[in-house]
Amino acid sequence: MIDLNALAAKISPSPAEERKIKDIADDLLSQTKKLCKEAELNAEPMLVGSVSKGTFLDPDIDVFIAFDRKYERSVMVKNALKIGHKILKNGEERYAEHPYVTGSVSGIKVDIVPCYNITEGEKIISAVDRSPLHTRFMLKNLNDNERKEVRLLKAFMKASGIYGSEIRTKGFSGYVCEILILKLGSFDACVKSFASTRGKYLLPVGDDQTRKFREPVVIIDPVDLNRNAGAAISLENLSKMRVISKEFLAAPSEEYFFKKTEKKPRKMYRGTEIRIFRIPSPDGTDDTIYPQAERFRKILSSILAEGGFSTVGSELDVGKNIDVLVECRFKKSPEFLVHRGPPADSERTHEFMTKWESREDVIGPYIEEDRLLVDVPNDPVEIEKYVKSRLESYNIGAQIDSLKDEMIIIDPMKGKQEYHVLEKYFSRSVI
Amino acid sequence: MIDLNALAAKISPSPAEERKIKDIADDLLSQTKKLCKEAELNAEPMLVGSVSKGTFLDPDIDVFIAFDRKYERSVMVKNALKIGHKILKNGEERYAEHPYVTGSVSGIKVDIVPCYNITEGEKIISAVDRSPLHTRFMLKNLNDNERKEVRLLKAFMKASGIYGSEIRTKGFSGYVCEILILKLGSFDACVKSFASTRGKYLLPVGDDQTRKFREPVVIIDPVDLNRNAGAAISLENLSKMRVISKEFLAAPSEEYFFKKTEKKPRKMYRGTEIRIFRIPSPDGTDDTIYPQAERFRKILSSILAEGGFSTVGSELDVGKNIDVLVECRFKKSPEFLVHRGPPADSERTHEFMTKWESREDVIGPYIEEDRLLVDVPNDPVEIEKYVKSRLESYNIGAQIDSLKDEMIIIDPMKGKQEYHVLEKYFSRSVI
Repeated sequence: MIDLNALAAKISPSPAEERKIKDIADDLLSQTKKLCKEAELNAEPMLVGSVSKGTFLDPDIDVFIAFDRKYERSVMVKNALKIGHKILKNGEERYAEHPYVTGSVSGIKVDIVPCYNITEGEKIISAVDRSPLHTRFMLKNLNDNERKEVRLLKAFMKASGIYGSEIRTKGFSGYVCEILILKLGSFDACVKSFASTRGKYLLPVGDDQTRKFREPVVIIDPVDLNRNAGAAISLENLSKMRVISKEFLAAPSEEYFFKKTEKKPRKMYRGTEIRIFRIPSPDGTDDTIYPQAERFRKILSSILAEGGFSTVGSELDVGKNIDVLVECRFKKSPEFLVHRGPPADSERTHEFMTKWESREDVIGPYIEEDRLLVDVPNDPVEIEKYVKSRLESYNIGAQIDSLKDEMIIIDPMKGKQEYHVLEKYFSRSVI
Repeated sequence: MIDLNALAAKISPSPAEERKIKDIADDLLSQTKKLCKEAELNAEPMLVGSVSKGTFLDPDIDVFIAFDRKYERSVMVKNALKIGHKILKNGEERYAEHPYVTGSVSGIKVDIVPCYNITEGEKIISAVDRSPLHTRFMLKNLNDNERKEVRLLKAFMKASGIYGSEIRTKGFSGYVCEILILKLGSFDACVKSFASTRGKYLLPVGDDQTRKFREPVVIIDPVDLNRNAGAAISLENLSKMRVISKEFLAAPSEEYFFKKTEKKPRKMYRGTEIRIFRIPSPDGTDDTIYPQAERFRKILSSILAEGGFSTVGSELDVGKNIDVLVECRFKKSPEFLVHRGPPADSERTHEFMTKWESREDVIGPYIEEDRLLVDVPNDPVEIEKYVKSRLESYNIGAQIDSLKDEMIIIDPMKGKQEYHVLEKYFSRSVI
């Protein structure tokens, strides 16, 4: 066994560092309080997030200014930005649910964010209004030992790239880590829970409340029993957590808590046809661009599969460009496609039979097991031409649709240029 | 609507024909009775099958000699064969559950078959012992109108190739048709039942008894409630019956009751790799050879799919040779295979990770949805070589295993020879 206490000390900030960060945070808080008072605002500044809760790995100071509900949004935002800029001389404005100011103090990232002041049980006005409730709840309920266990869990998840609820990651948020430790008691219990459960991951297990959520991970938010705090976690990340938990339990090692140096992709050319479909990244935040980029990837994969190119896998990379990679077995579509019809016991068999039965150029309709099938002749065409013709009719999303015409299709095996999406694709791994 | 009564008259033997057949059958019966008496056998000859029940389309006379249970099998068989040969001068011996004599009288096929005399409720000794019970039951319960409906149903099924419970067909037996009409009332009700039900076909519906059978069609035998009379019916044939029933109901036509003249296959070459795997048919009955031939087909299909040849479909033909056709997209296996591992929530993930993680030549293990996958390099090899190397380790069945070395692999697109299995494959259809 490894010594988890010693490890926790290793991954956590030193007492001196923690003191320093707390001091900076407290100073920022009193500055904000002073400015609120001067401006005669009915607003309560508070520290939220992992620094305030003592569960952070990397320090990030979040100062929230919780305004009374009576304020209009525009007034709230105007005042908060003013205060933010006064405190953070190097501050810049960013746009999440409300605009906020981000900057740094002594090398530590600081956000100054407006929200509405909500008490437990009251209806929230904007999603950020929950953060103060979460912070208050954890301050009240997490003890020192549990805080240490939260840090272990976060480090474990971070090392495998499944920590963080932002849309690029779709992983476990810090707050989810805190709930897991609070409910299960320890890092060890948490890993055992992911290693041994099957199907959807539910917490509390067997709770009626969990049933109404459709996401793969359902973790009821203790401050709002109608909310799934694990809603952002993807099936892939749940699966990773399960596999890694089992790997760790089989042979515990400190390696699981530290990020591996980037693996080099192993082999590139392997007799397939790889294409990168590239469009310039439109302006906007990840929250608007990323879902569209994922839809773009999904559409490209499925039309190539439908077209008979025999897809092997795909990858997405969003940077200056949106790059979608799809690997196919065929460069050209085949002379015929096997078209799967409805099952024999469905109401749609007659429609299918009527459509295909009289066609002289098809084989079938015939039956395999419980399914109607037909072999339909196809005009063989190359990937590039096929994708361009099919993509036209698809609605990918406002920003990407307007850029479809600018799409270029790259064969990365030609030439010596490097592509991040290609490296990502060839270095896929669980750990 | 079509006139089903007129149609029934058209597909049924004329009253004169029926009289003639009955006369022949009665004459055969009394001859058999006489010979049994002369030999002083405690045995009761009786007519069984569709001729005796008045539900036949093509006349086939079955004379069963039901021996008292006290007779040893060898004695029973010896006596029955003796009588059979006396009656059928041109008779030949065949082997089903017991040996029997088959021949013809005035152009009508006649079987003389030994069985044990069983009364309802008594345990049968051999499967053929049930036939007299079935005959007695149907003689007692089927009325004239229902007999007509049985003939319609049989003709409907026969025209689509799903009539007959023998192992080559795996379709609906005559007895199953009789139960269907008896329980559902008419041909029309029967077709509506297949058109509207989903999942397994159960009769009686909702009966506890039907639950214990795993076959796709469960039709409880009214003379033995522990027996599924529909056990031989394949999922494909159930599916066909469902699709054809819906087609018929959408546009009723007499065409559904008459076999289509053989369709010509539509197109042969279509850019794929078709191979016929041929071994000489071993000696034996369909009951022993056919299951092995099907296993042979299944094994060939699945090893080619596993090998990455991208199989499209397969066909089986058993005649002088056992011909298995498999159509593949590739002539050569690919440079790598995507190997699907266990789901992330299974107990086998650690084994899979341990096996693959340290291999430098693979990509992964990685996760897609809830699955572990790994891309494994593969040595590209042609269909012929691959199949021969893989087939060695498979156990197909006693008769076929000893012939594996004689297997030849034919590319039917080379040369002008015709292959029945190829025609069958390219003329697959529902109707």
